[in-house]
Amino acid sequence: MKIAIAQLNYHIGNFDGNLDKMLRATAEAKANGADIVVFGELSTCGYPPRDFLEFRDFIRHANNTIDQLKAAADGIAIVVGSPTINPLLEGKDLHNSAYFLYNNEILHVQHKTLLPTYDVFDEYRYFEPAKEHKTVMFKGKRIALTICEDLWNLGNENPLYTVCPMDIMMLDEPELMINVSASPFDYDHAADRLEVLRANVKKYKIPLFYSNVVGAQTEIIFDGGSVVFSPDGSVYDEMPYFVEGISYYDFNDVVKGGRNNEQTKEKIPLIHDAIILGLKDYFGKLGLKKAILGLSGGIDSAITAVMATRALGKENVRGVLMPSEYSTSHSVEDAKALAENLGIRYDIIPIKRPYNSFLKILDDVLEDKPFDVTEENIQARCRAIILMAIANKHGNVLLNTTNKSEFSVGYGTLYGDLAGGLSVLGDVYKTEIYQLANYINKDELVIPQNTISKAPSAELKHGQKDSDSLPEYHLLDPILYMYIEHRLGPKEIIEMGYDETLVRRVLKLVNTSEFKRHQTAPVLRVSPKAFGVGRRVPIVGKYLS
Amino acid sequence: MKIAIAQLNYHIGNFDGNLDKMLRATAEAKANGADIVVFGELSTCGYPPRDFLEFRDFIRHANNTIDQLKAAADGIAIVVGSPTINPLLEGKDLHNSAYFLYNNEILHVQHKTLLPTYDVFDEYRYFEPAKEHKTVMFKGKRIALTICEDLWNLGNENPLYTVCPMDIMMLDEPELMINVSASPFDYDHAADRLEVLRANVKKYKIPLFYSNVVGAQTEIIFDGGSVVFSPDGSVYDEMPYFVEGISYYDFNDVVKGGRNNEQTKEKIPLIHDAIILGLKDYFGKLGLKKAILGLSGGIDSAITAVMATRALGKENVRGVLMPSEYSTSHSVEDAKALAENLGIRYDIIPIKRPYNSFLKILDDVLEDKPFDVTEENIQARCRAIILMAIANKHGNVLLNTTNKSEFSVGYGTLYGDLAGGLSVLGDVYKTEIYQLANYINKDELVIPQNTISKAPSAELKHGQKDSDSLPEYHLLDPILYMYIEHRLGPKEIIEMGYDETLVRRVLKLVNTSEFKRHQTAPVLRVSPKAFGVGRRVPIVGKYLS
Repeated sequence: MKIAIAQLNYHIGNFDGNLDKMLRATAEAKANGADIVVFGELSTCGYPPRDFLEFRDFIRHANNTIDQLKAAADGIAIVVGSPTINPLLEGKDLHNSAYFLYNNEILHVQHKTLLPTYDVFDEYRYFEPAKEHKTVMFKGKRIALTICEDLWNLGNENPLYTVCPMDIMMLDEPELMINVSASPFDYDHAADRLEVLRANVKKYKIPLFYSNVVGAQTEIIFDGGSVVFSPDGSVYDEMPYFVEGISYYDFNDVVKGGRNNEQTKEKIPLIHDAIILGLKDYFGKLGLKKAILGLSGGIDSAITAVMATRALGKENVRGVLMPSEYSTSHSVEDAKALAENLGIRYDIIPIKRPYNSFLKILDDVLEDKPFDVTEENIQARCRAIILMAIANKHGNVLLNTTNKSEFSVGYGTLYGDLAGGLSVLGDVYKTEIYQLANYINKDELVIPQNTISKAPSAELKHGQKDSDSLPEYHLLDPILYMYIEHRLGPKEIIEMGYDETLVRRVLKLVNTSEFKRHQTAPVLRVSPKAFGVGRRVPIVGKYLS
Repeated sequence: MKIAIAQLNYHIGNFDGNLDKMLRATAEAKANGADIVVFGELSTCGYPPRDFLEFRDFIRHANNTIDQLKAAADGIAIVVGSPTINPLLEGKDLHNSAYFLYNNEILHVQHKTLLPTYDVFDEYRYFEPAKEHKTVMFKGKRIALTICEDLWNLGNENPLYTVCPMDIMMLDEPELMINVSASPFDYDHAADRLEVLRANVKKYKIPLFYSNVVGAQTEIIFDGGSVVFSPDGSVYDEMPYFVEGISYYDFNDVVKGGRNNEQTKEKIPLIHDAIILGLKDYFGKLGLKKAILGLSGGIDSAITAVMATRALGKENVRGVLMPSEYSTSHSVEDAKALAENLGIRYDIIPIKRPYNSFLKILDDVLEDKPFDVTEENIQARCRAIILMAIANKHGNVLLNTTNKSEFSVGYGTLYGDLAGGLSVLGDVYKTEIYQLANYINKDELVIPQNTISKAPSAELKHGQKDSDSLPEYHLLDPILYMYIEHRLGPKEIIEMGYDETLVRRVLKLVNTSEFKRHQTAPVLRVSPKAFGVGRRVPIVGKYLS
């Protein structure tokens, strides 16, 4: 038996586009002699469809896609994920299901049992869990068909669920497992995922064919890395990260094992590739082409420009240098050097005139109070107006260049440097930003060395440094990481040896800047805990604040 | 037996404040001879605590509050909601629980069974449902203790759950039900809630003591309206909406029934009062006092100013009139008249200087292309800079004045008129805005008549009217309502008799403006489906777009 895993990039709600991809992959797999082609979780409608699932019209479109795939399941079996309607009155209205289509018929439908409802996932919002677990017989082999999280109650120290659907399916003595997934990227997840899947294979001792989706859906990036395990728990093959592809596996070869084609997993290169895919799909799926961003001469805007250029092409990226009286001369020079290295268009537009005109008309109402964050914010907001004006006139999307350290502590101006349609680096701490810069520069000097080596500054007043307002990043970032990624409280972090005053100050900054993060762009998610849909914190709370 | 219902306004994460409120209420109830005092759902930590629940430190604080309440449960029983740790390794780490405290002991802990995971609710994200359902014996009476949603699988056409915890508890033959709730307001919900609760009373034929919380937590407004049902299904008493209070009920009197003290429920007055509470608590709970807003002379900013004045006091509201060359003379006159009616401070700051300075410095990069939305947006963004500058210098919070019709179709400028810390009217359609204006003006002329009667205009170019870009609101709003509140698709809405071209145009506007709503302030929720946390829609989707 020959099994094709089709690792494809779907688009939420783009039923025609998704169907077309799957039909082409089916034809190719059939031409290559595959007996089964396996797509991804909810691949008819794209994952995660969120509240679109509440529209019957949306479900009708998904059902129609299944009908058309059924018509194509002729001489080849198709395994595909799609929402289905729960026939019972009680419980949620939908199931998250996988179809096994063959000979123009629905041979089997298996609903998902374990519904992830944490971090970026909201599946219990929409779906009723499966109560029945049946295997399917195909060409003399019994197959256990599961959906993503269904395999995730093994290999964890703290299991989230009280049932394990494979335990039930094993009563039928299946010979192989097929799993259709939509498992998102974070820099730890590819390795974690292999361990969880391996725990299943080691427990059930049958091969696993795991088909993941690839591509970004707004902030969530799916990395692919579909994987086939031999029954001894070794990785037979892992498909590439961040690209589409179809791979073919002979069942007997997989059972025999010994291929061990596992990819290396290095954090910074993975982040780099994930962000480029995130950018590419944000623009591509929205039908957009052109980006714009402010180039300050600093490292965050430099990396954002590099990423955008690599994702969209240099002809589609435009930088704007907007010096003020507080800008250092090197900031303009560094930004120009970067733009020239990248070959992107840049303009220099000083903000002096509008800045002074605001000071003039606000003279009375600001009441001669001393220069403070008010005047700093006016500068940042003048820059946002300039960028958005060019974007509006020429059809660019403004990229936000804020990093995760700044986002965490609210070091940024709402409607100023926090503006933008997509946050490119909002899930990358400043200390990781430097690693990313060195990785980008590893073969040739793309980012000017001075941009990397100078002390970070917002340049909103004379001689300003980030370290005037914030702890040094090598002190700040580990505390943020413990609080945000690991959800440790002040007591636990202080017990790890961090300075109590600093810890309390940092946690307070995080919690009192929630109102800013509420109004910022979606953040490309590369860590296990990104700002946005996966982290839901009250604005009006009085906790560590 | 005398039962006190304490309908209180808790604050998320403010453990000391919440404990203090409950201790004072307990003392008062005890002094008044109550046998039991009943608080709300998760009232130790405030509802909804969201991802704060993932911090063990947060749970420790909640447990500490329970310890202190237990110490106060001396001669009076206390019923109080709090998160508890699930002792089992499998499943979610927490339960959403209700404690029955008496004689300085924990007499009973009942976990919640039905975990709302829809609209603004995410309970399955955190909590494991109850597997055990026990009643508690107190002073010779057996009590069935449930938590909010536990009673909500009755009285619905399409039940969301497959179990009904009261069915199990009834095996113990309890004599009364107590329910601790955090049930939020929308203009339909008070009536819906009574019907669901009545269905329980009618089925189980025992009295119900239902204690709801009151107060706003960022965007979600809890209306209180705690209610006591006699066993015949009649409302014995309903506590007031939107205010704190303690009411006392004699068990035998309630069983006898016949009091029938049910409140009237009128949509527009309820919305009015809800928004005022929402504003009051947003400022109060964040420790803020002063609001600022732009006054355009239009109806949205007028109502926002009225609401803010009623919530915060006229001394804490500041209006800014920012005319441009496109402003009509009546817009300034109407705005001045409103400010004078309200007695609030206002300033007039024309935007001409900064607007012209932007046009000047952008002259090259805008490439002589014709006046379009770019120049309109520059005006709106100049106004945001002015408002935010005053806010930053003097400690005001900018109020957003956008209505739900505009939000829906993306009729507004990001970082311009879509700016602000809180959206006051973002859940009120334009057609409801007019009803609200008339309600406000019912006793005296607060909002100038011209503001109500003139055609809506953004005044960003000469002679502009909303109806140049949008359908008339009386055509637009019903389509939005069917799509947003009722989740009907284009087919269903067109079948209701709406023009197909118009329906498709409106739905496309809604779906392609998701990126704007992603970056706006929290919206005070008054309808069954508000923008924000209760409506989760992909930005990068291709559905009806």
